[in-house]
Amino acid sequence: MSYFPSVTPIRFEGKQAQTPLAFRHYDAAKLVLGKPMREHLRMAACYWHTFVWPGSDVFGAGTFRRPWQEGGDAMAMAHNKADAAFEFFSKLGVDYYTFHDTDVAPEGNSLAEYRNNFAQMLDVLERKQEQTGVRLLWGTANCFSNPRFASGAASNPNPELFAYAAAQVCTAMNATQRLGGANYVLWGGREGYETLLNTDLKREREQLGRFMRLVVEHKHKIGFKGTLLIEPKPQEPTKHQYDYDSATVHGFLKQYGLEQEIKVNIEANHATLAGHSFHHEIATAAALGILGSVDANRGDPQNGWDTDQFPNSVEEMTLATYEILKAGGFTTGGFNFDSKVRRQSLDEVDLFHGHVGAMDVLALSLERAAGMIENDLLANFKAERYAGWDGAFGQDVLAGKLSLSDIAEHAFAKQINPQAVSGRQEMLENLVNRAIYG
Amino acid sequence: MSYFPSVTPIRFEGKQAQTPLAFRHYDAAKLVLGKPMREHLRMAACYWHTFVWPGSDVFGAGTFRRPWQEGGDAMAMAHNKADAAFEFFSKLGVDYYTFHDTDVAPEGNSLAEYRNNFAQMLDVLERKQEQTGVRLLWGTANCFSNPRFASGAASNPNPELFAYAAAQVCTAMNATQRLGGANYVLWGGREGYETLLNTDLKREREQLGRFMRLVVEHKHKIGFKGTLLIEPKPQEPTKHQYDYDSATVHGFLKQYGLEQEIKVNIEANHATLAGHSFHHEIATAAALGILGSVDANRGDPQNGWDTDQFPNSVEEMTLATYEILKAGGFTTGGFNFDSKVRRQSLDEVDLFHGHVGAMDVLALSLERAAGMIENDLLANFKAERYAGWDGAFGQDVLAGKLSLSDIAEHAFAKQINPQAVSGRQEMLENLVNRAIYG
Amino acid sequence: MSYFPSVTPIRFEGKQAQTPLAFRHYDAAKLVLGKPMREHLRMAACYWHTFVWPGSDVFGAGTFRRPWQEGGDAMAMAHNKADAAFEFFSKLGVDYYTFHDTDVAPEGNSLAEYRNNFAQMLDVLERKQEQTGVRLLWGTANCFSNPRFASGAASNPNPELFAYAAAQVCTAMNATQRLGGANYVLWGGREGYETLLNTDLKREREQLGRFMRLVVEHKHKIGFKGTLLIEPKPQEPTKHQYDYDSATVHGFLKQYGLEQEIKVNIEANHATLAGHSFHHEIATAAALGILGSVDANRGDPQNGWDTDQFPNSVEEMTLATYEILKAGGFTTGGFNFDSKVRRQSLDEVDLFHGHVGAMDVLALSLERAAGMIENDLLANFKAERYAGWDGAFGQDVLAGKLSLSDIAEHAFAKQINPQAVSGRQEMLENLVNRAIYG
Amino acid sequence: MSYFPSVTPIRFEGKQAQTPLAFRHYDAAKLVLGKPMREHLRMAACYWHTFVWPGSDVFGAGTFRRPWQEGGDAMAMAHNKADAAFEFFSKLGVDYYTFHDTDVAPEGNSLAEYRNNFAQMLDVLERKQEQTGVRLLWGTANCFSNPRFASGAASNPNPELFAYAAAQVCTAMNATQRLGGANYVLWGGREGYETLLNTDLKREREQLGRFMRLVVEHKHKIGFKGTLLIEPKPQEPTKHQYDYDSATVHGFLKQYGLEQEIKVNIEANHATLAGHSFHHEIATAAALGILGSVDANRGDPQNGWDTDQFPNSVEEMTLATYEILKAGGFTTGGFNFDSKVRRQSLDEVDLFHGHVGAMDVLALSLERAAGMIENDLLANFKAERYAGWDGAFGQDVLAGKLSLSDIAEHAFAKQINPQAVSGRQEMLENLVNRAIYG
Repeated sequence: MSYFPSVTPIRFEGKQAQTPLAFRHYDAAKLVLGKPMREHLRMAACYWHTFVWPGSDVFGAGTFRRPWQEGGDAMAMAHNKADAAFEFFSKLGVDYYTFHDTDVAPEGNSLAEYRNNFAQMLDVLERKQEQTGVRLLWGTANCFSNPRFASGAASNPNPELFAYAAAQVCTAMNATQRLGGANYVLWGGREGYETLLNTDLKREREQLGRFMRLVVEHKHKIGFKGTLLIEPKPQEPTKHQYDYDSATVHGFLKQYGLEQEIKVNIEANHATLAGHSFHHEIATAAALGILGSVDANRGDPQNGWDTDQFPNSVEEMTLATYEILKAGGFTTGGFNFDSKVRRQSLDEVDLFHGHVGAMDVLALSLERAAGMIENDLLANFKAERYAGWDGAFGQDVLAGKLSLSDIAEHAFAKQINPQAVSGRQEMLENLVNRAIYG
Repeated sequence: MSYFPSVTPIRFEGKQAQTPLAFRHYDAAKLVLGKPMREHLRMAACYWHTFVWPGSDVFGAGTFRRPWQEGGDAMAMAHNKADAAFEFFSKLGVDYYTFHDTDVAPEGNSLAEYRNNFAQMLDVLERKQEQTGVRLLWGTANCFSNPRFASGAASNPNPELFAYAAAQVCTAMNATQRLGGANYVLWGGREGYETLLNTDLKREREQLGRFMRLVVEHKHKIGFKGTLLIEPKPQEPTKHQYDYDSATVHGFLKQYGLEQEIKVNIEANHATLAGHSFHHEIATAAALGILGSVDANRGDPQNGWDTDQFPNSVEEMTLATYEILKAGGFTTGGFNFDSKVRRQSLDEVDLFHGHVGAMDVLALSLERAAGMIENDLLANFKAERYAGWDGAFGQDVLAGKLSLSDIAEHAFAKQINPQAVSGRQEMLENLVNRAIYG
Repeated sequence: MSYFPSVTPIRFEGKQAQTPLAFRHYDAAKLVLGKPMREHLRMAACYWHTFVWPGSDVFGAGTFRRPWQEGGDAMAMAHNKADAAFEFFSKLGVDYYTFHDTDVAPEGNSLAEYRNNFAQMLDVLERKQEQTGVRLLWGTANCFSNPRFASGAASNPNPELFAYAAAQVCTAMNATQRLGGANYVLWGGREGYETLLNTDLKREREQLGRFMRLVVEHKHKIGFKGTLLIEPKPQEPTKHQYDYDSATVHGFLKQYGLEQEIKVNIEANHATLAGHSFHHEIATAAALGILGSVDANRGDPQNGWDTDQFPNSVEEMTLATYEILKAGGFTTGGFNFDSKVRRQSLDEVDLFHGHVGAMDVLALSLERAAGMIENDLLANFKAERYAGWDGAFGQDVLAGKLSLSDIAEHAFAKQINPQAVSGRQEMLENLVNRAIYG
Repeated sequence: MSYFPSVTPIRFEGKQAQTPLAFRHYDAAKLVLGKPMREHLRMAACYWHTFVWPGSDVFGAGTFRRPWQEGGDAMAMAHNKADAAFEFFSKLGVDYYTFHDTDVAPEGNSLAEYRNNFAQMLDVLERKQEQTGVRLLWGTANCFSNPRFASGAASNPNPELFAYAAAQVCTAMNATQRLGGANYVLWGGREGYETLLNTDLKREREQLGRFMRLVVEHKHKIGFKGTLLIEPKPQEPTKHQYDYDSATVHGFLKQYGLEQEIKVNIEANHATLAGHSFHHEIATAAALGILGSVDANRGDPQNGWDTDQFPNSVEEMTLATYEILKAGGFTTGGFNFDSKVRRQSLDEVDLFHGHVGAMDVLALSLERAAGMIENDLLANFKAERYAGWDGAFGQDVLAGKLSLSDIAEHAFAKQINPQAVSGRQEMLENLVNRAIYG
């Protein structure tokens, strides 16, 4: 049985493609900077937005009528959902997928049911992976949707919730390892506060630090070779979340001595909600040495919540991809489409439109960014701009050979009078447009 | 000669005050929680907004016609400005003041002139302090207004600018020490980026880290006993500033091993520009152990730039003051009015209206917060809410006696099924209003 | 049977009240400016947030376990809900309530069922109103939650949806009239666009204009004496909504000649989402002559979505109430608490905490605003500030007796050189604080 | 003498251009949809950002050292500035320019000096226009920078300021007519409020309505054939400005019966400050019949003030240009670059980089939008989507042949059960990307 009978596997057909459901730019095996596109991009489709979300929002019920979401026995539905998901991944031609524990198996009414259901579905997922060749980019545990987590998971005032979350995360990490996942992600949806009137920030941070330490130790204990990732988000659902942005996560990791153990999974829409550009968050994480993976989507620049739309700007993604390439490209990470079709896009075919368009946008962006790398005018400009720091004085300063008063005396003695020089922002912006548009 | 001939020294007259220019709540010597109001609040007026800014904005020229800003010999004007400033501080009855190097003395046309002018004005300030009893809460150096700093000071691509800034900061630190300043502040107005296309984030962070290390070493070298403070701000004037918020500064300090040496000076309006409440930034800094001082003002919740209005919300300041008191109160820090009258408030008397109202707001807030502390229902509520963590299991978890799988096994074995309990936000909000309004 | 057995009717006990569930400021019969508090405030509790919403959000399922929300026969549940609601209204001591059609009766599976269910529940509501004395401030129809309205109601590309909405609105208007409702509200949750790529703004505006015209005609046809109200909101759930703010609604009404027929229902949180203060929206609607009623709540100044928290700022509500009093006070309108307890406030008693605190805030704000009116220093200041316009020249200009070149010639001839005078913002802000805090 | 000796006139050289200062896409005479590019785009450079602004911002002094801004006799400088400006316009190859009265001539110390200086410079501008062929897209008066306008111009509490503004606007309108300007623009920089505590919204709106009526009458009196334009902006410099956005201006025009007389000049950065996309504001103005002209620039999506950067997104401008073309294209309006180089872009050559890049972006966007028009898949999709409204029932509804109860009865009688259909947003977004990227 097929859940997408009208859709044939998506193929690369180039710009001459006559059908909307063809890749015009994404040619998986095409070499870019000596590596196939697919290996650069490591793209993943996610379970939750595409196979779990019913098309609801705060003001209205679900608009979707997915055959795999019809009522009935929960485990039977989970099997149907897996069938639909892997048919979708295969027809789409995406190499990876991602999931939360409770996306793929029903939570059940007890931890025993949870563990049992999840174990059964692991067998299914393992078999599906073998049959299709689709791999797991990362797994994660949903410790935020169930009402029990209303006041947080690891940061909950009640340690039993910490224990409950530990049970889920431990199980999901083991599952991720068994399925050969390349990373494991931690997203603290409820790890934050609603009001400071009832919240002890210091205590909650300590709890969170302990939790992350336990996760790191567990990783080593089970020999998981993938990367641990924290996903920053500033607010929503909570008023304020502890993992606000890349710099905040970095500070947290430094505080608990975890900066060599955990990297960040950067989401475009979370970046913009934090008042940063996506480009900024990528570049900051790279500068801090914690760039891990990317949740590819986009927000609405005029709205203040997570819209999780598909990325559709080559202009934006070219700059992001350029930074990723400059940082060495992805190792275990990749581009996960944490993106959902609009609530009005209620047909199954819309799921393909969303992903196909986004994959083409990333492929185009990769090509444009690679073009920028080949003749790296930006890097040359920067090298020249900072050249003074490579001189003797700059090096002495950075090496700590001079004290503040030494430097001050140097300045007073030479009566230095340095002036600003042009940063050439407009010229550089034109260079980028030239890389994109010729 | 008087610059404010129509204003007599502001006195505490209580709620029955008939004149607008009287304190109705700020009674400097009144004991609150066993300490005089003035010692709790340690309020300061600043030089720049009140004695330097001409009432200009991006779309228009200055509207003020201050006698001490009339053209003429720069040093003569600096003397006039000091006369006006200390007359104002004295009549206002504020215990402290704050300044930038270039507020109090003309920059001149060379570093030699800068040093010389500043040295002369130091004598003046020292004498004024003695005469009036007004003390220096903190000094700082302006390394952002002069065009030479267009591309940053410590983070400039040109190390000569780093040296120039070092000359100013070294001089301003020495001056602050001589004047008995209680703190020294670093605000990186241009330490950030305008475009990533010409910016090397990693290099610039390293430069900034080096600069802060040099400042710390200089402090110890000269034996300055005050506190070093970094003032966070997310953007404006630069697209993005490196000292985004308290958590970002904390991460930076951790990275360079400076977290025992530098604290934060939190500005209310900078907090809200960063997407945080002022209350949040205070509480976060306290939780991270880096709460130093406060720039008291307010922003406009609907606008996206620094409006630096006088604080006028007792509701907001009571919560902030409660957190400060809970954190032990100010040591070297205080409330500095980094606030300016509106461009339309062009009379000298408006300077008094702004400060008098704000001082009364802080006094009222202190009294309300003290009331909350005396019968600390919030603290009691929190203690009960987190009580589970004080039990054996919670303590074992925090102490690292249990691994992730130990905890998971505990959860599975006991089939725990913890449920959410009410956080009572509305009840607690009512408690706060009761503390404020009776 | 009681749904709130532990709660006794809330009484005014004054500031000495020992229990959290007592009014400390709201004394219904107390005269303020010669009118009882209850008649000034005309406060209403709403059905949806308190009796329908399950405590869900975008990232998690409902946390509430209300006895009247347990599964079972839909009509039986509607009866239970009505019992709970009117017990709540009565114990709370609120004079009014508000509802959507689908809050009070199940939608059913067809329009026939809808009409029939609603008709049955109308009998119930009518009886409840008689028994309790609680009155209907306004009714409305929910034309946004059902998936059928995904692309709008009146502005839907399919006219059958327009017809469906007409069926609901016609029914709900008739019901409102029968129940003696004082107003009828239109909120266009889905009347807006998600993407301009598939949207014809002009067509949709025409459809909306036609719909409003039909509603007005129906009002007159059935002899409804209440006020028709449009509720502005800028976005959420749609990217952009046609009823963005008061000024936009006013323009729309002018375009379709409806400005004498429809007023606005201003929601505090919708105002702030539109980039305006609540105060601004009240004052603008008053200036435009379309101030109708108020949805009292508050948003989070740092978040970008509708949080619908209970109003808890006397400072904010005093200014809003002052404007309402200056505009003559409410006629048919009132303060409806379009407010919900936090998802973590999951006990029934939290519903009381939220409302009791909010009612006290409004009562206090009314008293403070009345104090401002009695000795109207703001009005006096404004009168003097604009006095020039009451002179001959100002009056001639406004009366159109002078042309642009006449006025220009007057200016050139007299070589006028007018200067700015102080707007005294800080002094006026202090006056307001004095009115609030003494 | 040349102010830009190193720059030769910018030429179209196509994608093979070897120099940064060449057009790669803007080929003025190239036909697009049967009309030369230059006639579609009607591009203008502005006087203020490029020839007046010194590179200052709120936190720092000007960084530019333009030869035409050196101190000296004000009229001599105005001549130099005109020389520089027209050399720039000519070398750039832009067909139009724009100015404020006080950009081109010194204000002087009295209205007499103002009029005299302006009159002299008019002769200069007229001669320059003849010599270069550069034409005036629009003129305007600066009634916001001088301190006298601190509390507004037409909306000032003092009618003498209204008169002063009338003198300027009358003079500037006459000048615009004499110079053959295609439009006259009104931007109310200070027409708004800082605090409602001292502001009478109703009075100020009446004053503004009267002013606009006078302007319209003056236009007809002097026989000016161009278009009058109001430029919306939500805030900055004032807390709130009366011309918030296109819909607000439209409502204002309707209120004063001016909707046939005045159109809007839409600025991209003003749109985003108002919480709208630029695309939205264009489409809204077109739908309301008041689309006049465009101020082409861009803001920073993460900052909250007017950055006035050069437009550099083909993706954004293609959608905007598509809407303009669909609305019939510009008549008297055009694209004015209300854009400034960054404060760090301090060389004269940066002025060329900014404009050349932006002109290429508009040229590319025009070509892409024209491609979308030629095979108008979006229009076809919309036509089909709304087809129901062209049927008998839809037409009867719109024509007012059916009452609300008629329509309701139709719905009940037929037991209609309309369902949502897909809006295909993702597919349409892909179509747009295909138009841009092939």
